[in-house]
Amino acid sequence: MQNFTFQNSTKVIFGRDKEKTVGTEVKEYSDHVLLHYGGGSIKKYGVYDDVIDSLEEAGVEVTELGGVQPNPRLSLVEEGIEICREKDIDFILAVGGGSVIDSAKSIAAGVPYEGDVWDFFAGEAEIETALPVGTVLTIPAAGSETSPAAVVTNEEEDLKWDIGSNKLRPQFSILNPEITYTLPDYQTACGAADMMAHIMERYFTKTEDVELTDKLCAGTLRTIINNTPCALKEPKNYDARAEIMWAGTIAHNDLLGTGREEDWASHAIEHELSALYDVAHGAGLAVIFPAWMEYVHQEHVERFAQFAVDVWNVDPDFYNVEQTAKKGIEKTREFFSSIGLPVSLEELGVPTNKLEEMADKCTSGGPVGNFKSLDKEDVFRIYKLSQNKR
Amino acid sequence: MQNFTFQNSTKVIFGRDKEKTVGTEVKEYSDHVLLHYGGGSIKKYGVYDDVIDSLEEAGVEVTELGGVQPNPRLSLVEEGIEICREKDIDFILAVGGGSVIDSAKSIAAGVPYEGDVWDFFAGEAEIETALPVGTVLTIPAAGSETSPAAVVTNEEEDLKWDIGSNKLRPQFSILNPEITYTLPDYQTACGAADMMAHIMERYFTKTEDVELTDKLCAGTLRTIINNTPCALKEPKNYDARAEIMWAGTIAHNDLLGTGREEDWASHAIEHELSALYDVAHGAGLAVIFPAWMEYVHQEHVERFAQFAVDVWNVDPDFYNVEQTAKKGIEKTREFFSSIGLPVSLEELGVPTNKLEEMADKCTSGGPVGNFKSLDKEDVFRIYKLSQNKR
Repeated sequence: MQNFTFQNSTKVIFGRDKEKTVGTEVKEYSDHVLLHYGGGSIKKYGVYDDVIDSLEEAGVEVTELGGVQPNPRLSLVEEGIEICREKDIDFILAVGGGSVIDSAKSIAAGVPYEGDVWDFFAGEAEIETALPVGTVLTIPAAGSETSPAAVVTNEEEDLKWDIGSNKLRPQFSILNPEITYTLPDYQTACGAADMMAHIMERYFTKTEDVELTDKLCAGTLRTIINNTPCALKEPKNYDARAEIMWAGTIAHNDLLGTGREEDWASHAIEHELSALYDVAHGAGLAVIFPAWMEYVHQEHVERFAQFAVDVWNVDPDFYNVEQTAKKGIEKTREFFSSIGLPVSLEELGVPTNKLEEMADKCTSGGPVGNFKSLDKEDVFRIYKLSQNKR
Repeated sequence: MQNFTFQNSTKVIFGRDKEKTVGTEVKEYSDHVLLHYGGGSIKKYGVYDDVIDSLEEAGVEVTELGGVQPNPRLSLVEEGIEICREKDIDFILAVGGGSVIDSAKSIAAGVPYEGDVWDFFAGEAEIETALPVGTVLTIPAAGSETSPAAVVTNEEEDLKWDIGSNKLRPQFSILNPEITYTLPDYQTACGAADMMAHIMERYFTKTEDVELTDKLCAGTLRTIINNTPCALKEPKNYDARAEIMWAGTIAHNDLLGTGREEDWASHAIEHELSALYDVAHGAGLAVIFPAWMEYVHQEHVERFAQFAVDVWNVDPDFYNVEQTAKKGIEKTREFFSSIGLPVSLEELGVPTNKLEEMADKCTSGGPVGNFKSLDKEDVFRIYKLSQNKR
């Protein structure tokens, strides 16, 4: 086990109707918030009204900024920063999924900073302070509701880059599983793939003797695997939705990575896809992760065999560790496919004429991944492996 | 799953040599601390010197108060409160195990309070503010390093009562597994029983559909079960010590109880033992918990069968759920015995002439436990069940 520091202060408020308490939570911090959200779904299904009512009741003034798109855009972040400065707003309330929360965090980082907010993403400045952020989560997937990270797309330069700082962890996040009843199946499935990927990026490590976190990772993965088909079949099954929602937070609140070297190559490889073709991040991961697994599994085949047994109930075959390992990879791909996700670039609808360019961009800052360090050629091969369904 | 709120802000600093950074951590809060500790072991094994050196280097003034005993005494808490007031001390640094940390938390609650600190334990006052506390953990067991709770013994009245408030969670806790190399076997074993009990108090619930936390509980229990025999055999095995130490924190940082009704009868029943006979809390739990299991298992036998399969690898027998359940109870008792713990009052060296008095005291505030509500007669029977080894 490696040395580590772990601190996650976000207050999680979980359960039925909890979004109706948001005013009280916000009021602890602010009298005037930027209410940040995406498209029309929060208005269509009543969340918007509940939040507005609660804020009003608590006497909190609201300035709205909607329109966050999946793979949130830098231009909207810049607009948010301007609004907050003009109106002296000192709290950002994000009502939405990971894209909305990431956009909110980026605004929060940008408001008190004199330079260009993209400096943080480009690694040219450190986040020293940020406005406080609160969230009402509507899509369990990204884990951004308690994480220190945010990913934003610079649409002018086709770059999808991230920032991370403990200063960006939300002060509170409200999670009501009922709000997720109306999610389209595809979004439910993409969310499952995203949270599974967050765990797998941590599970696939070369750090030895990490039994506790191995077991916590496996337990969280199995919970997602068990409950996602149920939520797809019965979208209003509270318990399935609740297991998935809480698992999505645990997947990315940093606990599961304590004491371990983490990987994160698959995320880097996927980000090039969604930066260029605007595909759903979870769908991109469902394509890339199994291809990455195939490409790297021989690096430490025991870990992949352990994964197959602990997560997928594959019978352990110590006479043929490679075969045990491969069954786990196959099960992962089959699961993604079974919940309606694409498992090849072809199914994802991504053309293959820019694979080399993407591999180049992906490794522009040097090799990616820790389980196996991947250079441009490796990344290109992983894109090629994911080209057609097998 | 039930609604819940979860927030645990304690910064955990984990790994080799980390106690040598304590001065930097403390300096964020204070220039003058009360250094609170127990007997001579921290001086014998060098932890004391490392802490003093680090505080000195950071320019932090130190006032010492040693002498905390297991089952920490109210009188010493009162002494600590006086010292802090007299010397204007605004931070308590606990270097020790759960007793030292609990004593430190109680001092922290008492200093700013005008009344008698026992008021908080007696439920006659609410903790509205407290001094900040930091810890260097030397015994993985109680989980007090990130928990909101403290247990103190009022030696004049033979009462062992507890307080709980988010205001009592330590600001930081430093966990270096190397410090635990010198723990006597009995203390290592008592620690394992204590942390296992913290998980089992949460595992045994009547709340249904709590799959994620069930799996996190089982994974943490199995980690303790796998690593404790190894730490006993090889006291300087870093990885075994690290797994146990981190598991002890996870066991009681509130995550494993999210969304579940918890039980806590066994703790209440054990507290009477250690209040009266000053036995080690973990040893008392090793005696009481299996007896409690036997007494209550028919209340919800499926849960005990699940426990047997998920935690102890018992083969599931759906034709004989009761038998599956009982095997799990037997395995629990056998495990405690195998690591050198007593599993009966007789082995614990506790006389049996006051069982009725203890049962009376235990239920003086009403029935205990949620899995099955236990009145005086029930508690008495559990004491009787634990009288002799079976």
